[in-house]
Amino acid sequence: MTAWPQIRPEAADAPASGIVDLMSYARGREGLIPLYVGEGDMPTPAFIVAAAERALRAGETFYTYQSGIPELRTAIAGYLGRVYGGSTDPERIFVTVGGMHAFQIAVRMAAGNGDEVLIPTPSWPNFDGAVTVAGAVPVSVPMRSDAAGWHLDLEDLAAQVTPRTRAVVINSPANPTGWTARREELAAILGLARRHGLWVIADEIYGRFVLDGPEGARAPSFRDVMQDGDRVMFVQTFSKNWAMTGWRVGWLEAPAELRPVIENLVQYSTSGVPGFLQRAAVTAIEDGEELALDQIRRARLGCAIVCEGLRATNVVDLPAPPGAFYAFFRLEGRSDTGRVVREIVDRAAVGLAPGSAFGTGGEAHVRLCFLRDPAQLREAVSRLQRVLPDLAAGREG
Amino acid sequence: MTAWPQIRPEAADAPASGIVDLMSYARGREGLIPLYVGEGDMPTPAFIVAAAERALRAGETFYTYQSGIPELRTAIAGYLGRVYGGSTDPERIFVTVGGMHAFQIAVRMAAGNGDEVLIPTPSWPNFDGAVTVAGAVPVSVPMRSDAAGWHLDLEDLAAQVTPRTRAVVINSPANPTGWTARREELAAILGLARRHGLWVIADEIYGRFVLDGPEGARAPSFRDVMQDGDRVMFVQTFSKNWAMTGWRVGWLEAPAELRPVIENLVQYSTSGVPGFLQRAAVTAIEDGEELALDQIRRARLGCAIVCEGLRATNVVDLPAPPGAFYAFFRLEGRSDTGRVVREIVDRAAVGLAPGSAFGTGGEAHVRLCFLRDPAQLREAVSRLQRVLPDLAAGREG
Repeated sequence: MTAWPQIRPEAADAPASGIVDLMSYARGREGLIPLYVGEGDMPTPAFIVAAAERALRAGETFYTYQSGIPELRTAIAGYLGRVYGGSTDPERIFVTVGGMHAFQIAVRMAAGNGDEVLIPTPSWPNFDGAVTVAGAVPVSVPMRSDAAGWHLDLEDLAAQVTPRTRAVVINSPANPTGWTARREELAAILGLARRHGLWVIADEIYGRFVLDGPEGARAPSFRDVMQDGDRVMFVQTFSKNWAMTGWRVGWLEAPAELRPVIENLVQYSTSGVPGFLQRAAVTAIEDGEELALDQIRRARLGCAIVCEGLRATNVVDLPAPPGAFYAFFRLEGRSDTGRVVREIVDRAAVGLAPGSAFGTGGEAHVRLCFLRDPAQLREAVSRLQRVLPDLAAGREG
Repeated sequence: MTAWPQIRPEAADAPASGIVDLMSYARGREGLIPLYVGEGDMPTPAFIVAAAERALRAGETFYTYQSGIPELRTAIAGYLGRVYGGSTDPERIFVTVGGMHAFQIAVRMAAGNGDEVLIPTPSWPNFDGAVTVAGAVPVSVPMRSDAAGWHLDLEDLAAQVTPRTRAVVINSPANPTGWTARREELAAILGLARRHGLWVIADEIYGRFVLDGPEGARAPSFRDVMQDGDRVMFVQTFSKNWAMTGWRVGWLEAPAELRPVIENLVQYSTSGVPGFLQRAAVTAIEDGEELALDQIRRARLGCAIVCEGLRATNVVDLPAPPGAFYAFFRLEGRSDTGRVVREIVDRAAVGLAPGSAFGTGGEAHVRLCFLRDPAQLREAVSRLQRVLPDLAAGREG
């Protein structure tokens, strides 16, 4: 930015998303199967669209409540009760412009100039980005991986706590690794946070995307171990369960005492979420349970297709992900995954995300989103089977 | 926030909007005529709604471009050419979640921890709020008022520049005062900014709401005086011209060289604006010129009704506002306007905004939005005529 020296460093230094880079590279390629983004391929169903249309036609096109219409906050609280048990006070719910905006607000409250935020990696790159923009320092805590998959060593986490640490971000089930914390692990993390007075920012947006065990299970949650007064905030979204990525509707759940602060942070960033989008969200959460279950079944089927298909190449290292909807795999002998994913675009017309986008420990991996049409996934796997052996190092043509 | 000591001061200290306070007080009052918010009373017209519906039904419900679909950026650039002349590179345009989000991003680039941002006051309270949340310090530059209206003394502005000053916010035509800078004034402000290396953040969202002179005129703009390389950013919105306040669609115009930085700031705050809302915005800006002109005519008529009606009480001091769509008036003998507006809710069922919401110099004023149905405005004026003489100090009964 030499031409514009007066840009604040926290803005100028925010890292670009490596996923977006690859998307730009691939944009417009004919016949490309795009598996680089964290979204399914199903457009939002008509019953949800219809709810937005009804509200639009009824003239709900004016400014509305900063933190969400009461009907939606109540509907979200009811949903949380159905999935997690217990009861949730709607005053704890703040509707936001997607989970991203919820995370921005959570970080803005927890950490600022020079503060440190712990983030187990590999991780969704937007955590790092939003922490940097807030003027705080994202501190990577690399997870460990072995043949059984990824895990977070609590001692690794504890070792990174300093007097400037203000928060720890826990995304479980995790993007991109699928890591899913056990209840005891969440309790231990919460214990650490309590001892040091840290905020836990819990991203449990994949909480129902459990890929092993019986259908219908949900992942362990901080809700299972926390008590009143714990400093835990949840970021959530309508994107994944209800096929609404492009709607930009999510929510932050935080102590109700923070309501005046959070309403100000909404007011001074987006001033709220369009009322007619919120009506659609009410319909999604109240009438969309079958849709959510269908999305989860689709992810489980996609997982089986992709994991079996890629392993059959014998050049891929891919432990089964227990949660979320990504295959995060290594290609034998190749750690230059930024180049690998471009070669895959060029030679197989499949779009994957480079592991380097996900921070420390993920560099040698590639991410594939399998929340997609099974037929399309089979085609993608077939294409990958043709080129991956070539692309693996030392296995020329 | 004693129960939550670990909230960052820039979040905890952000001032609450005094407008929202009064709205909460008035919410649910039967028959209330709400003139406290800066929006018209016309729902978004059907031709704009229909464009959103078409896009929704076509399945445009996925993630989209961080800084806006190319069609909308091109449409905005074309519109700017029609209104202001010259040509605008669509690469300078970044679609945002309303003008508020555009301002948040502009501030985030220009100012951070301990930096100062000059804001002529009275002003839209969200300027102060967003600057505070960014960790910077809003510095008020009180405008002067006399029988002819409000004006900004350039020496007052220059006197507030310090080594920490990074930006000056110029909202012309202004909310709430209607102040409209002359071209020479804009040139002088830009000269000051150049000498000190400051950013100008120009909020010209009321640029076409010119209330005096011939119909169809637009207000002077920084476009008229700036040159390539000047550090000027424009925040803009679809809210006012096209009756789309609740849609939360706006744009930031900034040097194209900042594109990578701004795209990151979008990515890490909202990740973009729903594609189907952007389709509606394209239709608004391309097919909505008659609508915009109608809104402006409505404002001019509203201004006449309100100014004449309030002056007839003989207890109101209200110079004619040259721009925007607010009457910002004093009530004789009363400076406790936070109380005055509650009394007006209780006794006249009219909702007005207290001047204290708009910062230094506005405390003794009351703001009324007149972008409304003329019949409703006449009724509001009639109610105010009944109570204002009572409420003015020293004129009991």
